[in-house]
Amino acid sequence: MSRAISGATRLYVLLGDPLDKARSPEYYNAVFAARGIDAVLVPMEVAPAGFDALIRALKTVRNLDGLIVTMPHKQTVLAHLDRLGDAARQVGAANVARREADGLWFGDMYDGPGFVEGLRARGIEPARRSIYMAGCGGVARAIALALAQAGVARMRLHDIDAQRCAALVETLRAQYSRLACESGAADPAEFDLAINATPLGMRPGDALPFDVARLTPSTAVADVTTKPEITPLLAAARERGCPIATGRDMFEAQTALAEQLFGWSR
Amino acid sequence: MSRAISGATRLYVLLGDPLDKARSPEYYNAVFAARGIDAVLVPMEVAPAGFDALIRALKTVRNLDGLIVTMPHKQTVLAHLDRLGDAARQVGAANVARREADGLWFGDMYDGPGFVEGLRARGIEPARRSIYMAGCGGVARAIALALAQAGVARMRLHDIDAQRCAALVETLRAQYSRLACESGAADPAEFDLAINATPLGMRPGDALPFDVARLTPSTAVADVTTKPEITPLLAAARERGCPIATGRDMFEAQTALAEQLFGWSR
Repeated sequence: MSRAISGATRLYVLLGDPLDKARSPEYYNAVFAARGIDAVLVPMEVAPAGFDALIRALKTVRNLDGLIVTMPHKQTVLAHLDRLGDAARQVGAANVARREADGLWFGDMYDGPGFVEGLRARGIEPARRSIYMAGCGGVARAIALALAQAGVARMRLHDIDAQRCAALVETLRAQYSRLACESGAADPAEFDLAINATPLGMRPGDALPFDVARLTPSTAVADVTTKPEITPLLAAARERGCPIATGRDMFEAQTALAEQLFGWSR
Repeated sequence: MSRAISGATRLYVLLGDPLDKARSPEYYNAVFAARGIDAVLVPMEVAPAGFDALIRALKTVRNLDGLIVTMPHKQTVLAHLDRLGDAARQVGAANVARREADGLWFGDMYDGPGFVEGLRARGIEPARRSIYMAGCGGVARAIALALAQAGVARMRLHDIDAQRCAALVETLRAQYSRLACESGAADPAEFDLAINATPLGMRPGDALPFDVARLTPSTAVADVTTKPEITPLLAAARERGCPIATGRDMFEAQTALAEQLFGWSR
């Protein structure tokens, strides 16, 4: 049963730009309703130019308990947090923030851990495996660091921006000396897991992020897009008999972590 | 049917301090649900020190369409509005604000018009009548100016702060030269309408704002408090046979005006 918003309702704000496709308001408000929690999550679409002033102002709102942060603010938010979880510190970005009992703000980054847990929910264990990943942007960076942390053996990264790709390879090598990591050709053949961490697949008519003809059924394929959940890549991979993990798997694992952080998971 | 909040939901914010007794979130969100409007009103409890920065920041939020403003921010908000309705300009305060098509902000003050319309909804017409009012604070000021505008003949004001009372009398005299207006003793006898515009009656054990023994059944009695709706004053007046108008009558008339302003009243 949905509970009416009153003057005493606790507030959570989703910050991003754009937000029209964001899933978290529907998801978290359903959690509040199901568990009888007197709280609401509302979207606030704000451009980078307005972000710093908005977050500083929101912190003065007495009934604000937390923030969910999405693109393009995941890096910028760090300057407003007093304490960071390991993943946030490692990635240099955060997507959840909580006001703590002493009034200070704690933030963490659940994109990477959520991706890894989403794989495991589908029975795909990345430890000691080889990974091909298309895309080296913000989400890819979080995922690559979480996969390294989870103990993958080998990683090949590919991005149309070669410099960005090389930078992420450097980061991974610096932090995980035992990880075999390289930038390389856009070819997923003979990897245990092929990941799309580019936006390709969100819009009808997008090219595939890599050549599915190179996949054998032994390669698992994962995508980060939630709308649509089954991207053309995942549909083609499934058709070839590959195990798949979707953006929704990642999203649900992330929300489980956020629910734990905010203390809603009872 | 309640509609789920999504990333595309339009936002309205209630600004005040404290807000735990505020009625507008429940009321307006019920309006949105009943009319299938994809919008939500959330409370933001903020102290005066944080108000200016918060409202400036909120204006940069792309999906924010309007504000409801309550104590202690009704005066402060004026500096953030580009256009004012007549009542807002006259009172020097606003309690509703809307982002207009050109991006500028329009604000108005519905406390006074809402009070007058609330009386009328109970069949009490203030034009050409005599009024006794206890309290000369912000709400009283808005009500007194709206009553003067509605054509009352005579008004006596009383406040424990004599200077505040004299100031409001001066304002009324300056703007309404034909209105007989005075500050005077706390005695509602022989007035057509006696109003409590003080906070007395919100808390159990509060003194009555004036002596009900002085009331005859020909005097209507009105109160501005919504919680409780029937204050000890109104209960005593009703017992003596006086017509009454409640804070809820005022609130409902105000919300009808706000619904019209925001375009929800179809």
